[in-house]
Amino acid sequence: MFQINEHYLQLGESYLFSTIADKVKQFTATHPDADIIRLGIGDVTLPISAAVTEALHRAVDEMAVKETFRGYGPEQGYAFLREKIAERDFQRRGIAITPGEIFVSDGSKSDTGNIGDILGGDNIVAITDPVYPVYLDSTIMRIGRSDKTILLACDEENGFLPEIPAERADIVYLCYPNNPTGTVMTRAELRKWVDWALEHESLILYDAAYEAFIRDNEIPRSIYEIEGAQACAIEFRSFSKNAGFTGVRCSYTVVPKALKTRTQDGEKVSLNQLWNRRQSTKFNGTAYIIQRAAEAVYSPQGQKEVDEMVSYYMENAGMIREGLIERGLTVFGGENAPYVWLKCPEGGNSWDFFDKLLEECHIVGTPGVGFGAEGEGYFRLTAFNSREKTEEAIQRIKKCRI
Amino acid sequence: MFQINEHYLQLGESYLFSTIADKVKQFTATHPDADIIRLGIGDVTLPISAAVTEALHRAVDEMAVKETFRGYGPEQGYAFLREKIAERDFQRRGIAITPGEIFVSDGSKSDTGNIGDILGGDNIVAITDPVYPVYLDSTIMRIGRSDKTILLACDEENGFLPEIPAERADIVYLCYPNNPTGTVMTRAELRKWVDWALEHESLILYDAAYEAFIRDNEIPRSIYEIEGAQACAIEFRSFSKNAGFTGVRCSYTVVPKALKTRTQDGEKVSLNQLWNRRQSTKFNGTAYIIQRAAEAVYSPQGQKEVDEMVSYYMENAGMIREGLIERGLTVFGGENAPYVWLKCPEGGNSWDFFDKLLEECHIVGTPGVGFGAEGEGYFRLTAFNSREKTEEAIQRIKKCRI
Repeated sequence: MFQINEHYLQLGESYLFSTIADKVKQFTATHPDADIIRLGIGDVTLPISAAVTEALHRAVDEMAVKETFRGYGPEQGYAFLREKIAERDFQRRGIAITPGEIFVSDGSKSDTGNIGDILGGDNIVAITDPVYPVYLDSTIMRIGRSDKTILLACDEENGFLPEIPAERADIVYLCYPNNPTGTVMTRAELRKWVDWALEHESLILYDAAYEAFIRDNEIPRSIYEIEGAQACAIEFRSFSKNAGFTGVRCSYTVVPKALKTRTQDGEKVSLNQLWNRRQSTKFNGTAYIIQRAAEAVYSPQGQKEVDEMVSYYMENAGMIREGLIERGLTVFGGENAPYVWLKCPEGGNSWDFFDKLLEECHIVGTPGVGFGAEGEGYFRLTAFNSREKTEEAIQRIKKCRI
Repeated sequence: MFQINEHYLQLGESYLFSTIADKVKQFTATHPDADIIRLGIGDVTLPISAAVTEALHRAVDEMAVKETFRGYGPEQGYAFLREKIAERDFQRRGIAITPGEIFVSDGSKSDTGNIGDILGGDNIVAITDPVYPVYLDSTIMRIGRSDKTILLACDEENGFLPEIPAERADIVYLCYPNNPTGTVMTRAELRKWVDWALEHESLILYDAAYEAFIRDNEIPRSIYEIEGAQACAIEFRSFSKNAGFTGVRCSYTVVPKALKTRTQDGEKVSLNQLWNRRQSTKFNGTAYIIQRAAEAVYSPQGQKEVDEMVSYYMENAGMIREGLIERGLTVFGGENAPYVWLKCPEGGNSWDFFDKLLEECHIVGTPGVGFGAEGEGYFRLTAFNSREKTEEAIQRIKKCRI
């Protein structure tokens, strides 16, 4: 009889968003006239930009003609895109990342989920709490729930920045700007992590999917701004949030050639080569037309449009933040991230606040406890709805009893 | 110090296509005027069809407007495509597969590679030889090289159809129409495998990426044409070869709800639920515009265009087959598959024949030994080049000393 990977049985049921959907459904059934505003989901609402649209149409036309049709592309991504990324996202900022260190893919969720394929099963893995659930779930799928997974509490006391683990940790997932707390890591803070990783020969899996939302020039946008990080970190980047690609699907992962470890036999091994082998074997590259769309993001027009999009969402974030503060709430994030993390009033719990916000203000958000036990007592609002809806939501919050 | 998955070190270097590239490069350097014809690679050459092109443009325009923009889609694929697939590829053919059993993805390489995620590490895995390398390499990545992997020899004697293993095998990969041999499995033959799997509670991973090339109505296009297969098989399908999607990237995997096994504790567990969890955690769905393109394949115009494309390639296959037979060669496949598998003349080996074909005819093919030890002495030609090039290649083969 064939057997399954029984680690899957150790996964928590992912009730969060289905529970939210059920609650909203129930509420609208009894309040059919309620104008519900959704500030819960991390999905964008602005359409793709003109430069991206044009690039897509052009690439589709190329695919429709024998002379310019493209079949299988390189699994790592086309050179035109890898070169653009290396130059624009890194080299221009003084970071020596080369095209051969860039792996284009269909999404950061795929890459942060699949990266475990190349890692050994005996590593101690450190994950923050609260956290984007993919890191934890994909780790459980791979090694099961065990003392090989340690949680790093992020709370008000430490400013939602995890402390360097006192015990052994071989791999740590960090995500800054953070989802869900919206907090960022300063250069000095990130420096501490890189130094620690270099000293302990640990690996940092750095999710920088929200780097475009950083307004403060002192906050690092890439871990590779920290000297030495190329020898200890893999970075995940995405076009989802800056360019509105959540439905277009393109992202990339940086695996520096300097990143090496040793086998049990003491042989040096390159993570870049391992990931290349993984992608060549289990992936056939991102669609050509999608890669042309991502390339267009770097055109002068594309950059202007992306900046406008990000600014639009960040103005929403600022409004939410200010509105909540005026209402007397304790608020984190929202300054360099599209997420605002608020403390539930009067020590209330996350789900009670969810219910209150839905019933009194007709607003849907995300209970912090859905991101981990340390999220209990907190609540996430996102900046991705329209200006009008966001303004209306804030007006309601100011007026309602919550 | 963090550790890697050391199974990766047990992978054979994938020298095949790079060795071919090197040899061709070397040859053209010394023969700059040679008009090389490539019948080696399994990539299509005809552009995407008009119906697909139109659907892509339409979907791009939807994405460019706020009212019709789509962000994150369902990880399993949009209902419009899952429903179309279930109805057209299965229900109309009398197979009771429902949309909830269809998982749309970016490619069969991803799915045949990733399926191991949900399978236990102690299964005995049977793989044919010769074989599409992804099954073997992704298995080695997961469980290492060990006696848990057994090879099923496919040779002239058994008509390139593996024999039911005498020893225990919990999982078997089957690919029909076969890459690289171009052979097919009759209903009776496939029935034997399904009966065996049901009896032994084994799992069949059935790759039907080339089903569109089947001309003979007696040959099953889906393993689910065999009664009972829904309880023992996962099927992989692709739009790559029938609709020319090698650069567009769309495929799907069928995981029937009837497919269950038991945990070590004896609890029943559904593979459909496991794969759903895997995809929800590590994949964010195929791009919306690509799914609309796949949907267009099922439109009346799309179907007509796909049929024409497949016929075009199959006429190439027929020409290659006939030409080789006229030349006195022993030939397999090419009747219900885009691959022609030939026996190297006079018991020669695969690489010698490669060199001879390149030097004498200026034709590039793929040495059979590149697909496994049992492929030694054989050679693969593909039907995916243009009519003109294919005709020219056959003329050359007829005239040259090989």
